[in-house]
Amino acid sequence: MSEAAQTLDGWYALHDFRSIDWSAWRQADPGVRTAALDELQSFLKQWQAAEDARTGSTAFYAIVGQKADFVLMHLRETLEELNELETAFNKTIFAGFTTPAHSYVSVVELSNYMTPPGVDPMQNPDIIARLKPALPKWNHICFYPMNKRRQGNDNWYMLSMEERRKLMYSHGMIGRQYAGKVKQIITGSVGFDDWEWGVTLFAHEALQFKKLVYEMRFDEVSARYGDFGDFYVGNLLTEEKLSRMLQI
Amino acid sequence: MSEAAQTLDGWYALHDFRSIDWSAWRQADPGVRTAALDELQSFLKQWQAAEDARTGSTAFYAIVGQKADFVLMHLRETLEELNELETAFNKTIFAGFTTPAHSYVSVVELSNYMTPPGVDPMQNPDIIARLKPALPKWNHICFYPMNKRRQGNDNWYMLSMEERRKLMYSHGMIGRQYAGKVKQIITGSVGFDDWEWGVTLFAHEALQFKKLVYEMRFDEVSARYGDFGDFYVGNLLTEEKLSRMLQI
Amino acid sequence: MSEAAQTLDGWYALHDFRSIDWSAWRQADPGVRTAALDELQSFLKQWQAAEDARTGSTAFYAIVGQKADFVLMHLRETLEELNELETAFNKTIFAGFTTPAHSYVSVVELSNYMTPPGVDPMQNPDIIARLKPALPKWNHICFYPMNKRRQGNDNWYMLSMEERRKLMYSHGMIGRQYAGKVKQIITGSVGFDDWEWGVTLFAHEALQFKKLVYEMRFDEVSARYGDFGDFYVGNLLTEEKLSRMLQI
Amino acid sequence: MSEAAQTLDGWYALHDFRSIDWSAWRQADPGVRTAALDELQSFLKQWQAAEDARTGSTAFYAIVGQKADFVLMHLRETLEELNELETAFNKTIFAGFTTPAHSYVSVVELSNYMTPPGVDPMQNPDIIARLKPALPKWNHICFYPMNKRRQGNDNWYMLSMEERRKLMYSHGMIGRQYAGKVKQIITGSVGFDDWEWGVTLFAHEALQFKKLVYEMRFDEVSARYGDFGDFYVGNLLTEEKLSRMLQI
Amino acid sequence: MSEAAQTLDGWYALHDFRSIDWSAWRQADPGVRTAALDELQSFLKQWQAAEDARTGSTAFYAIVGQKADFVLMHLRETLEELNELETAFNKTIFAGFTTPAHSYVSVVELSNYMTPPGVDPMQNPDIIARLKPALPKWNHICFYPMNKRRQGNDNWYMLSMEERRKLMYSHGMIGRQYAGKVKQIITGSVGFDDWEWGVTLFAHEALQFKKLVYEMRFDEVSARYGDFGDFYVGNLLTEEKLSRMLQI
Repeated sequence: MSEAAQTLDGWYALHDFRSIDWSAWRQADPGVRTAALDELQSFLKQWQAAEDARTGSTAFYAIVGQKADFVLMHLRETLEELNELETAFNKTIFAGFTTPAHSYVSVVELSNYMTPPGVDPMQNPDIIARLKPALPKWNHICFYPMNKRRQGNDNWYMLSMEERRKLMYSHGMIGRQYAGKVKQIITGSVGFDDWEWGVTLFAHEALQFKKLVYEMRFDEVSARYGDFGDFYVGNLLTEEKLSRMLQI
Repeated sequence: MSEAAQTLDGWYALHDFRSIDWSAWRQADPGVRTAALDELQSFLKQWQAAEDARTGSTAFYAIVGQKADFVLMHLRETLEELNELETAFNKTIFAGFTTPAHSYVSVVELSNYMTPPGVDPMQNPDIIARLKPALPKWNHICFYPMNKRRQGNDNWYMLSMEERRKLMYSHGMIGRQYAGKVKQIITGSVGFDDWEWGVTLFAHEALQFKKLVYEMRFDEVSARYGDFGDFYVGNLLTEEKLSRMLQI
Repeated sequence: MSEAAQTLDGWYALHDFRSIDWSAWRQADPGVRTAALDELQSFLKQWQAAEDARTGSTAFYAIVGQKADFVLMHLRETLEELNELETAFNKTIFAGFTTPAHSYVSVVELSNYMTPPGVDPMQNPDIIARLKPALPKWNHICFYPMNKRRQGNDNWYMLSMEERRKLMYSHGMIGRQYAGKVKQIITGSVGFDDWEWGVTLFAHEALQFKKLVYEMRFDEVSARYGDFGDFYVGNLLTEEKLSRMLQI
Repeated sequence: MSEAAQTLDGWYALHDFRSIDWSAWRQADPGVRTAALDELQSFLKQWQAAEDARTGSTAFYAIVGQKADFVLMHLRETLEELNELETAFNKTIFAGFTTPAHSYVSVVELSNYMTPPGVDPMQNPDIIARLKPALPKWNHICFYPMNKRRQGNDNWYMLSMEERRKLMYSHGMIGRQYAGKVKQIITGSVGFDDWEWGVTLFAHEALQFKKLVYEMRFDEVSARYGDFGDFYVGNLLTEEKLSRMLQI
Repeated sequence: MSEAAQTLDGWYALHDFRSIDWSAWRQADPGVRTAALDELQSFLKQWQAAEDARTGSTAFYAIVGQKADFVLMHLRETLEELNELETAFNKTIFAGFTTPAHSYVSVVELSNYMTPPGVDPMQNPDIIARLKPALPKWNHICFYPMNKRRQGNDNWYMLSMEERRKLMYSHGMIGRQYAGKVKQIITGSVGFDDWEWGVTLFAHEALQFKKLVYEMRFDEVSARYGDFGDFYVGNLLTEEKLSRMLQI
């Protein structure tokens, strides 16, 4: 048996992707649309209040292409809170004009491959901040899930801790070159959803997603051991952009 | 031919995942909603009565994310009883506001790898209790199906009984470390559903699902021989939480 | 080129799995439901008449779980007759309350691996009876499709006839141990449907499906060369059970 | 780089599989049904006229099982003509009672593995006839798509022309044994649809599909290098059978 | 770690495939259809204006078969503009008669394998023109996504830069033979969509798609390292053809 990697875990995450029934929205009574938007605004305020109180964080982005029209990415202390958020949203008027497109359940995670022995990472305020982050309001979002491969000779989970640490180190070095350009939130989903990890990236410039992910693909961790799911990419929904998007 | 593992089999299990049509539910006549909830309550009472009579057991959890809104996990003596349960539920008013999201048919199973020779496990009251269990009412549920891999050199079914026993022993040791934190119900589904086993976990704290499943993944049984399906995670639906969830 | 196995072929088979729209059925006018049931009864009688005349056979089982609500398994002399059966059913009132869930097209088949040379199996009345069988009315049904694997070193179709014969012999020995407990109908679907074979099992006790399929999985034919599709399991629909199932 | 095989290409092919909404059809106003059938008849006449004029060919078969209710297989000189055919059909009253079930876009193709050097196959009237064929009106149709495998050591496209020619020769020998029993139309779909080839078989007796495809599976070309998609099987829709199928 | 290939990136691309609800379109009020077509024409004019101003480009093709009825391929400077285009289209009357069929998000890309050292490709006007191209109005379009394989010994991302350069060179040589017959736009989608690249081909004659893709398949880059997704093929929608397509 290979030594299991330890992880540090923070807030739970729910990525809630939804499509808009544009035909129903366009043909709805203007009064209904106004009521729907007012209710939506009050939800946005509640989520902002949670972020101000540092009890959670929410990111709201339009998704490009037909996979979804928008994503709500919620971070909260417990799975119960996430469930309440989604149920409350499901009961709104606006939700009645949307259909579920995709969702992902995970928990913010820091891997422990780099921690020097004898150090308690939970005493480190920087680490705490990364486990319970305020999600950036950068221009673009990118989300994809991934597994570490277990196939023939390419079996991540049969490698020794030392081999994995070395591979992860070189992988991390690539990420560091994108500091300030791409902010990366890793969430673990073993036991929670269909893949082992979710990766959520934020960038000022969308092209940085491609540069980072493509460069990493030549790194042995991805090249031999990475399996990737579907990718979603989107644009920040500011209040103004949201209102323009939903205006008929 | 490799010697087949023997199993002990108990109650049949039906995991019934369902999504709620929130828009229809919100817009339904309040009298219809009340009638639906009254009828649902009477079903919950019937299922509780079966549990009190030790003729079965039912767990009821909300599911986080879009895969489903809730799961009913029923254990009963026969497949016929499970079929009657689902048909009766399908005819309820409340079911008319739901759509099928996923289901799984299996039977509670204990593998026999550890039984010392000459011992009849069916004489053991503890084993009987584990084959016909009252499902825990712990805070969280996790469900996923799995296969033992048969691929190139990683073919579980071509291993000798002795090799499999050794691998399962080390696997079991990990599970034991989670005693009191995670309760595990293994159900066999060879001949009943699309995967070979269903795994249903219960925990007080959801993070324990991730810790357990992730630690096991580094164990050779999972690393080389485990193939996993979709994961569902949820929160206990107490009467109060159910009523809050369905309140408009 | 490896020598092709010969098969004996009998009646064509159509497995027709359907789901019931319970909400529509519950809310239908009672007169419509009565007319639907009367029409369904007359179809059941026609199918019974064909069975009495030995021109075909039909099995009718409820399916457990959400994959389907019931299956009609029809055996007939020609594909045209099967097509007429399904079209006639599609035009019934009751069919209007159902949706297609899955289907499978195949032909009853006996493999010829065991026939001693110089013997004409079609002179054997027992073989004729197995090629044009009256389907059992046992308590339970199990259906799944399968392929023989062609992957790297595990390529069934590259084995010699002699190797395949030896492997099939040991496989058949397991099946014989279940005589009286499990009745097995193998149907070939190469050129007819997406898998190479359909396996339909009947049992008095559902657990025998699991025992048989699980034991066989350790046999080299399944362990190295078997790929399996989705499994459906169900309960016999006697006239009384059918009427109870559809009663509102 | 391995030498590419040359192909000869003829008419474009569109396989258009459709399901009938039987409930809507049954409940439609009889006048609407009559108008729909009249319009359908006029389309059938147009397609027959194209066949008489040798500008194309159309086959019309009922499909057995739930995958579709019928297929229209059209051959025409250009992709534009095929597109016009499908659009015209989409605008008919009858099409409004159907839903798309599957389609396939390809072009009639003869591989060039067997052509002796120095011979121009396009001077051969028999070859021209095979590239622009009148589709047979035999009792049964079978359609499936296929790829040549590129997997580890089983990589068709890395074989030399000589190896491929030898393998294809033995493959062709099997096909010849079915002359008069099975007529085979190979259509190439590289660059047009999701698989590399479509195979459309016609037979007087449906069992010949199974015999041919099963025998070929033991041939190295299929055993090691063939990947197969979904199979559709059906019965000729003569005018009388069509009218019986759609009669309420 | 293998050296990552550098890319040059130009306009963002959105392929927007849609199906028409023909039954609703046929039965719509003629006034509604006229309004829908007028609005659609004004969108086509806006897109043409962007192309004239060299701020983007749009291709509009009918798709053959059931996968979609048409594709709009938009090129624009930013993801935000693409998102605005699709949202604006979603709000049109005509969009209400369509359903999403498929979409793809990527960015026009030139690989840098061939650039001689010391040369700044962004100083080359020809390269700029290829990164921000006016899409051809040739008769036919073909779209498919692809990955470079990472499987056992066939792992593109573990090859050295030198090996990849050599393989890509021979691959490029094939493409050049189709100059004037097939125009190829490569778009990178790592970090944006589910595959690593999108390939959009334009041709005067559809058969050239097949010839090019098939010939390339025997090249080692495709044979050993190419994984391909679904293929879409279509015909140019000139104003006249569009109007004929939508005429009832």
